[in-house]
Amino acid sequence: MLETAPVKTLLLTPGPLTTTEMTRAALNRDWGARDGDFIELSKRIRRRLTEIAGAADTHTTIPIQGSGTFAVEATLQTLMPRSGRLLVLINGTYGRRIAEITRRLGRSVATITAPENQAIDPMAVDRALADDAAITDVALVHCETTSGILNPLESIACVVCRHSRRLLVDAMSSFGALPIDGGRTPFTALIASANKCLESVPGVAFVIAEVGYLSQSAGNATSLSLDLYDQWRAFEADGQWRFTPPVQVVAALDKALDQLESEGGVAARGARYRRNYEVLVEEMKALGFEPYLQPELPACVLATFREPREKWFEFEQFYNFLRNRGVVIYPGKLAAEPSFRIGCIGAIDEADIRYAIAAVAEFTRSAPLTRASAG
Amino acid sequence: MLETAPVKTLLLTPGPLTTTEMTRAALNRDWGARDGDFIELSKRIRRRLTEIAGAADTHTTIPIQGSGTFAVEATLQTLMPRSGRLLVLINGTYGRRIAEITRRLGRSVATITAPENQAIDPMAVDRALADDAAITDVALVHCETTSGILNPLESIACVVCRHSRRLLVDAMSSFGALPIDGGRTPFTALIASANKCLESVPGVAFVIAEVGYLSQSAGNATSLSLDLYDQWRAFEADGQWRFTPPVQVVAALDKALDQLESEGGVAARGARYRRNYEVLVEEMKALGFEPYLQPELPACVLATFREPREKWFEFEQFYNFLRNRGVVIYPGKLAAEPSFRIGCIGAIDEADIRYAIAAVAEFTRSAPLTRASAG
Repeated sequence: MLETAPVKTLLLTPGPLTTTEMTRAALNRDWGARDGDFIELSKRIRRRLTEIAGAADTHTTIPIQGSGTFAVEATLQTLMPRSGRLLVLINGTYGRRIAEITRRLGRSVATITAPENQAIDPMAVDRALADDAAITDVALVHCETTSGILNPLESIACVVCRHSRRLLVDAMSSFGALPIDGGRTPFTALIASANKCLESVPGVAFVIAEVGYLSQSAGNATSLSLDLYDQWRAFEADGQWRFTPPVQVVAALDKALDQLESEGGVAARGARYRRNYEVLVEEMKALGFEPYLQPELPACVLATFREPREKWFEFEQFYNFLRNRGVVIYPGKLAAEPSFRIGCIGAIDEADIRYAIAAVAEFTRSAPLTRASAG
Repeated sequence: MLETAPVKTLLLTPGPLTTTEMTRAALNRDWGARDGDFIELSKRIRRRLTEIAGAADTHTTIPIQGSGTFAVEATLQTLMPRSGRLLVLINGTYGRRIAEITRRLGRSVATITAPENQAIDPMAVDRALADDAAITDVALVHCETTSGILNPLESIACVVCRHSRRLLVDAMSSFGALPIDGGRTPFTALIASANKCLESVPGVAFVIAEVGYLSQSAGNATSLSLDLYDQWRAFEADGQWRFTPPVQVVAALDKALDQLESEGGVAARGARYRRNYEVLVEEMKALGFEPYLQPELPACVLATFREPREKWFEFEQFYNFLRNRGVVIYPGKLAAEPSFRIGCIGAIDEADIRYAIAAVAEFTRSAPLTRASAG
């Protein structure tokens, strides 16, 4: 049993994540925000992100200060016309949040809601778009972080394109780990953040937006700070950020992108996460924990487990037990039932997952769980 | 003449600034955003900032992700009622920006505009408030970064208080360097950022808001991300940030506050900046450069100089010359005339200013400036 503080803290969460020493070393420099070096750095990041999305011919990347939600709101503020109507596809917290942001803005919202353990059905989207001609935009969460479920982006993009509507994709928990090819999967905007599968530190998010449409979106935003059009025009004018950027955080993202590249790109990173996920779920099942999602549904970036029905199991106690061993997990976010989440992303590998599993095993040893189901 | 890259880059700008090695070292750690350690850290920062403003009995600090402008907009979105009318006191870019943000939000705006080299006149504010009963809120930029001018916060706060209106203060470039005492200077909200006189890195800003009024401001904001009320409620509920915080940046701010304390607080820091300013202006004048502001007007956080009228002077060339010697200055932002700015804030002292002056002197040696005026 470990009594001293562990050397490494493993953040097995949906982010902020465990980062590499190299990424954090990039934080250790001061930058003039309007200096040539930083302008070059910002330009390089924008180009690299657009390329990762396979959208360099049609799209441009607009970084924005703040968390992923800031970028989601900036997209809704700017790319959705004030008179538009948004269809939000919901099977978790982040879908619900998109609807809430849009309603706050006073814009028209329709929703399709699926249970949190079911993927969004492209046929339902097809019917909704056929039935409601007022819908101008569709918002989809690619991997819903609430459960870790993967929604069928390609099929839904196809449907939305066939109906000639715009598709706004929240790819927060998938970008960098799951292949997304703008050439084959039509999207108007794809939103993600530095501190998820790109494995950098939080403080900057970004939108990869179709230039043809973006250029028509002046005046849509009621927020100056979150106006993606203005932010884009500033970058195009002189390469500078409109408002003070988190310079160290942006520099770390550039370094994190170097490491994504040297790891072998999105395919290699996705494979590492998948391996983390498989080991995690297999070992947790062996210890008596029941995964929330059916095996074919997860994006493999995080696993949601049902809270054991055993009376003695108390999440707070479980959390602190693991925390004292350097393993940080996440509470659940399901609307329907008690759960907890363990992330598989960040600068971690199978050995780290096995270290975490050993801590979980130690916890259950005192009072083993009854296997909740036959599975 | 220096041919190799200088060891230290001096950011003589209005921010991001030169930071200490200790502050940047605090960036080198991963934090679970919902973990107890980070909750403690966030709580400590909130308390310390409120105390620096001398407002611990009446106000609370709400940090927000992003640049200072995000915090300014969050304040306007949240603390100004939708049916309110804002009087903006303008003598530079940041005052104009407040008016722009408010108009974008579709809220009512009145303005008082002074020339960029004149402080706002409290008597003019008094008359405007007497004449226009519809005005609910007044916005003032304490130190207008456009020129470096100091506006008379105490007198204006007095006037606004006497008329029973709310005062929103943009203290971006003054907080931490100029004494502000909430006990003697009534304000509803004071807005600042980590990367100015607090000498931390950019990525987080904050609002020090009066609890009595803040608690009545639910539902004012049309932006979810920039809703200061919701952000505050989340902190009060469980100490957590609503949306992913820039954990490393927040940790650096805590470390920067330690250093403000050990330097001797706001008074000592202000004195260091004032010394930087005095040396800078005296030496620049000796080299033939003319300060834009009359001597009694500056806040002493940055100096604006008129571009020399000599035909050979070209800012780009001047900038690059200094840049090659490790000194980063800032272009001007005056509406009326060509200028440039040199900052006196950040982890720099008189020796650094003298180093910068030596570089300027080297530049002018080739072609000395004619003293522009008698002064």
